[in-house]
Amino acid sequence: MHPTKKIRQTDSVAFLGPKGTFSYECATQVFGDAEYVPCQSIAKVLETVQTNKADYGIVPFENSTFGTVLQTLDFFVNTKHANDSDQPHGFVILDQHYLTVHHNLLGQDTELDRIERVYSHPEALGQCSKWLDKHLPKANRVPVGSTAQAAEKAKQDRTAAGISSIACADIFGLHVIEKDIENLANNTTRFFVIGKKVRQPTKNDGTLVMFTLNHDQPGSLCDALAIMKDHGINLTKIDSRPSGKGLWHYMFFMQFDGHMNDDKVKLAMKSFKPKVLDFMIMGSYKKQLQ
Amino acid sequence: MHPTKKIRQTDSVAFLGPKGTFSYECATQVFGDAEYVPCQSIAKVLETVQTNKADYGIVPFENSTFGTVLQTLDFFVNTKHANDSDQPHGFVILDQHYLTVHHNLLGQDTELDRIERVYSHPEALGQCSKWLDKHLPKANRVPVGSTAQAAEKAKQDRTAAGISSIACADIFGLHVIEKDIENLANNTTRFFVIGKKVRQPTKNDGTLVMFTLNHDQPGSLCDALAIMKDHGINLTKIDSRPSGKGLWHYMFFMQFDGHMNDDKVKLAMKSFKPKVLDFMIMGSYKKQLQ
Repeated sequence: MHPTKKIRQTDSVAFLGPKGTFSYECATQVFGDAEYVPCQSIAKVLETVQTNKADYGIVPFENSTFGTVLQTLDFFVNTKHANDSDQPHGFVILDQHYLTVHHNLLGQDTELDRIERVYSHPEALGQCSKWLDKHLPKANRVPVGSTAQAAEKAKQDRTAAGISSIACADIFGLHVIEKDIENLANNTTRFFVIGKKVRQPTKNDGTLVMFTLNHDQPGSLCDALAIMKDHGINLTKIDSRPSGKGLWHYMFFMQFDGHMNDDKVKLAMKSFKPKVLDFMIMGSYKKQLQ
Repeated sequence: MHPTKKIRQTDSVAFLGPKGTFSYECATQVFGDAEYVPCQSIAKVLETVQTNKADYGIVPFENSTFGTVLQTLDFFVNTKHANDSDQPHGFVILDQHYLTVHHNLLGQDTELDRIERVYSHPEALGQCSKWLDKHLPKANRVPVGSTAQAAEKAKQDRTAAGISSIACADIFGLHVIEKDIENLANNTTRFFVIGKKVRQPTKNDGTLVMFTLNHDQPGSLCDALAIMKDHGINLTKIDSRPSGKGLWHYMFFMQFDGHMNDDKVKLAMKSFKPKVLDFMIMGSYKKQLQ
């Protein structure tokens, strides 16, 4: 199923709110008319799906300029604690969607000189660091929960600006002080669509798994990765985060080509799993050109 | 040479200042009496060494709770741009040092109810998120350039607190409102010592390299990593960051056992380099128990 196709009219979709965030823009592109459930954090989006308060969720996973979204990775790490199953409890990744992200400086006043504070989501502040360094070097960068909340803040304070989607200028009645202030053109965020059930394989899928390693065994990372090569599976990315289980103990995130229900992938995972610890398949998604 | 041993009395050492930061604490543990050059950002520390304004530099690389320090990785990525050599221009990693980090809430007032803002370095705010969620859920978390700057800010504002080292309470004349508020006990930061020349190999070293891949060649990550296994070299960690060269193009950071001047490592790198692009050896360091 193509991710931009609507799934059901009455689906409920949790997203990082309020309306006007990039997560909202992504959610509407994927689901069209649906019941939207705004959440205050990425963790809350995932919990809302886990506790059946929404059918689906949309979470940012990585941005082409700023890298992996740490809050999402850390929530995934936490799902593994005290879960012996090799799939996360209550949700699975079932698709992905790419959104081209343009950041804009919004405010009540259009004079840059008067701006003492710039509000935005930490990721957006990072994605616009070069423009801010050059044009607003003295302004305080204040992280808030979402890009839409940044616009709300700017609405309350004449000496502040927010970095937000262009839609927020209308929603909150703000001026667009400067358009497209992101560090790199083609700034794109990759979102995962989260739900209860994995979708059918296509011929062009990707899978995300996570695992830890036994640090007492030298060579264990090489040994595990060699299994992917032995099974002819193309590795696309590896990340690591603190596992929360001890000093310098990491949770590895591995992305590769193929669907978790493909025979080839199942066979590879059967050999891979005994080589690692805390193994978990987070789900599969259709690969797309963006 | 043991990293806690002084190198020369008159060495100059760049660090993320002002005095009172954890970088400063680390620098004094490594270098003892030296000329200390405070810098306003991690990038400035590295530039200060690159431009010969200091002999050495101290940069945080990863924290046991909060993960890799993105500013350091991103500076490393930037050193590769327009540099055809396989070593960074003007600096090399020559050692590492582990510092146990305790975060403390400092302020003028000891009443939690009156605290509206908490200043700290973004990494420190992350490392104390659980305590802040529980005890100061309504306080605004304001990122500043360093944990010492956070204490400075708290000194200027009775309704604010700073998350800082205990040394800052004395330096800035502040009360310790709460000690050791970090998420995990044994919160440790790993610093790299940067300088002009790599040190002699010991029998127990590690090396950091970075590289990108040709995305048109499926299997290239597996192929490259398999070479490390073929040469019997133990991989300890892999990270990735946007390379800044195009959408979803990554710079990979690979850490492994052995010194860059060990024959075994040299041989492995000779086979590894043709398999990847933008290859760079960032340096080697003595592995230590902490």
